[in-house]
Amino acid sequence: MITVNENFLKLQAGYLFPEIGRRVRSFQAQNPGAKIISLGVGDVTQPLAPAIVKEMKKAVDQMGSEAGFHGYGPEQGYDFLINAIIENDFNSRGVELDKNEIFISDGSKCDTGNIQEIFGLNNVIAVADPVYPVYVDTNVMAGRTGPANQTGRYGGIVYMPCTAENNFIPDLPDRPVDIIYLCFPNNPTGAVAAKDVLKKWVDFARKNKAIIFFDAAYEAFITDSDIPHSIYEIDGAKEVAIEFRSFSKTAGFTGVRCGFTVVPKSLMAYTKDGKAIEVNSLWHRRHCTKFNGASYISQAGAAAVYTTEGKKQVRQIIDMYMTNAGVIRKSLAELGHKVYGGVNAPYIWMKTPDGLSSWDFFDRLLQKANVVGTPGAGFGPAGEGYFRLTAFAKSADVKEAMKRFASVK
Amino acid sequence: MITVNENFLKLQAGYLFPEIGRRVRSFQAQNPGAKIISLGVGDVTQPLAPAIVKEMKKAVDQMGSEAGFHGYGPEQGYDFLINAIIENDFNSRGVELDKNEIFISDGSKCDTGNIQEIFGLNNVIAVADPVYPVYVDTNVMAGRTGPANQTGRYGGIVYMPCTAENNFIPDLPDRPVDIIYLCFPNNPTGAVAAKDVLKKWVDFARKNKAIIFFDAAYEAFITDSDIPHSIYEIDGAKEVAIEFRSFSKTAGFTGVRCGFTVVPKSLMAYTKDGKAIEVNSLWHRRHCTKFNGASYISQAGAAAVYTTEGKKQVRQIIDMYMTNAGVIRKSLAELGHKVYGGVNAPYIWMKTPDGLSSWDFFDRLLQKANVVGTPGAGFGPAGEGYFRLTAFAKSADVKEAMKRFASVK
Repeated sequence: MITVNENFLKLQAGYLFPEIGRRVRSFQAQNPGAKIISLGVGDVTQPLAPAIVKEMKKAVDQMGSEAGFHGYGPEQGYDFLINAIIENDFNSRGVELDKNEIFISDGSKCDTGNIQEIFGLNNVIAVADPVYPVYVDTNVMAGRTGPANQTGRYGGIVYMPCTAENNFIPDLPDRPVDIIYLCFPNNPTGAVAAKDVLKKWVDFARKNKAIIFFDAAYEAFITDSDIPHSIYEIDGAKEVAIEFRSFSKTAGFTGVRCGFTVVPKSLMAYTKDGKAIEVNSLWHRRHCTKFNGASYISQAGAAAVYTTEGKKQVRQIIDMYMTNAGVIRKSLAELGHKVYGGVNAPYIWMKTPDGLSSWDFFDRLLQKANVVGTPGAGFGPAGEGYFRLTAFAKSADVKEAMKRFASVK
Repeated sequence: MITVNENFLKLQAGYLFPEIGRRVRSFQAQNPGAKIISLGVGDVTQPLAPAIVKEMKKAVDQMGSEAGFHGYGPEQGYDFLINAIIENDFNSRGVELDKNEIFISDGSKCDTGNIQEIFGLNNVIAVADPVYPVYVDTNVMAGRTGPANQTGRYGGIVYMPCTAENNFIPDLPDRPVDIIYLCFPNNPTGAVAAKDVLKKWVDFARKNKAIIFFDAAYEAFITDSDIPHSIYEIDGAKEVAIEFRSFSKTAGFTGVRCGFTVVPKSLMAYTKDGKAIEVNSLWHRRHCTKFNGASYISQAGAAAVYTTEGKKQVRQIIDMYMTNAGVIRKSLAELGHKVYGGVNAPYIWMKTPDGLSSWDFFDRLLQKANVVGTPGAGFGPAGEGYFRLTAFAKSADVKEAMKRFASVK
């Protein structure tokens, strides 16, 4: 008899964004005239930069010609992209990487979801709370947790609350953990980690033979020059950290699909008997067996991000989003809201007014202002009483949304 | 201490195609003048059809415009593609499907590799031997097998030998199994399953509450009108089968990346307590949690496959490949080789001459004729003594390769 993976049955109701989608569709159906502005799902709104469009069209033309056709690419990705990444994202910040340490993929959601597969089920994982749900849900599916309790927390996971009290920087766990998920600039809180914070985590991981999954999907939004963009800017991090990067937010690739993961050769994990195994070789095997390379066209587009024109154009778009972030921060503060993030991150994290729950505020904002945000509770129990707004909107929409916010009591 | 998933350590040496790549590169390095012809890795060689190129360029242009930009798409895929699939691939053959039963992805390798994640680790899996390595390796990684024995077979898997003796159609297992991987038209043997064969398997699965993973990646190459293209052409199959499809071979998408999986709503799997669970909902959850949708541009290209122009152009390319298959079949038969497949499939499966092992014949062919094929043993022990050639080459190369074959003794 075919049996299911019963770990899936532990998962809590619908993944956050589908639930938001359902509520918005239901409201829109009942209010067909309402002009809803979404500052909710973290999806970009600006079109691809011209330099990227140009290279992607060239790539499509190649694919239609005898001489330029590209079939299966290298599973790890094309050298033209890997080399551009190493030079621009890492060498420029003093980090040396070998090209075999970069794995191009179709996006960071897949990578952060899949990476846990190469590690044992007995590892204790630590996540921030609130947290990007993919980290947790993929571990639940794999069987690395117990069932959820009343607050939605799963047994066996070490949750690290991030609230205004600790400036949304998790405290070190009070017990040994094996896998630590860190995301800076943070989704959803918009918090960033200075060098000393990351150093503390790297030292902790080294001491505990733990591994850090470092999600740097939002590094392009860092504006303060002293904030590290890569965890490898910290000495010793290559021995304890895997880093995830994405073109989704950096260059508007949410519908194009391209990201990459860095797995240093010096990173080791262990058998139960204590034998050291290269994590890079495990991920290589996983990548080559369950994935068949990212689209050549997407990779050609991603490489254009690193050209002179591409860099300039992409920077303009990011600046536009960060101007939005500033407008949101300022407007909400003027309205008397407590706001966090939005300086080195495209996310603004606000305290809900009047002690409202996250979902109650979501519903109120949707109904009274026709503005969609993301309930903080959707990212974990410590997100209850908070609300996420994103800067990924058209400037006019952001201004209009802020105007409407004023009317929400 | 961070531990590895020790199941990965059970995996046998390098995945087949990387190993072929290594041998070819080594030979080429030593013989820089040799003009190698590859009939090895099953990669297409013809450029994308003009109708596809046109739609993909249009899609890239859209992505570069305010009005046409597409960010995150629906994880399951765009309706414009799903509807075209249902109408053209299924309704046309008398199969009704709901759009929620189709899941667009970035390719069938990922889907056939990932699908096992939603099922329990205790399920007994049955695979043909020889077999596409991904089916087996992903189950090894998940922990559904014991270690490999001397022949490379993993403990706990039921292997179903496919040889000339049974016309490369596996016999029903002599014991209950829970998951059955079937691939028709078959990679690597080129065998096809008539309706009565598929019916036997559907009946077996129904009787045993088993599930069939039906890989139909090569259905476009079927030329005999009485061979089913979809397992759902068999009554009752929707209650026991998941079907995998791909644009990789059909439309030259190996570098574009798009495929899809059909999970009927009426398909059930069970908890240990015997409670029925909709497999569709489990796969939906997996798909939405660990995947973020296929590239909009790839999906736009895939939809063009179903336009009048697209169908005509894609058919011409497939016909060209099938002409190659005919040339290979005829030439090898004339040389006295025993050949199979190549009539309803792009793969020709030959017996190695002189009782040579698959890899020995691989090396001889590479060295003497500078032609690359795929050693049958790479697909499993029952593939030993066989050799795979693919029709995915330029016609001139196929003719030249056949000429050189004559010189190999």
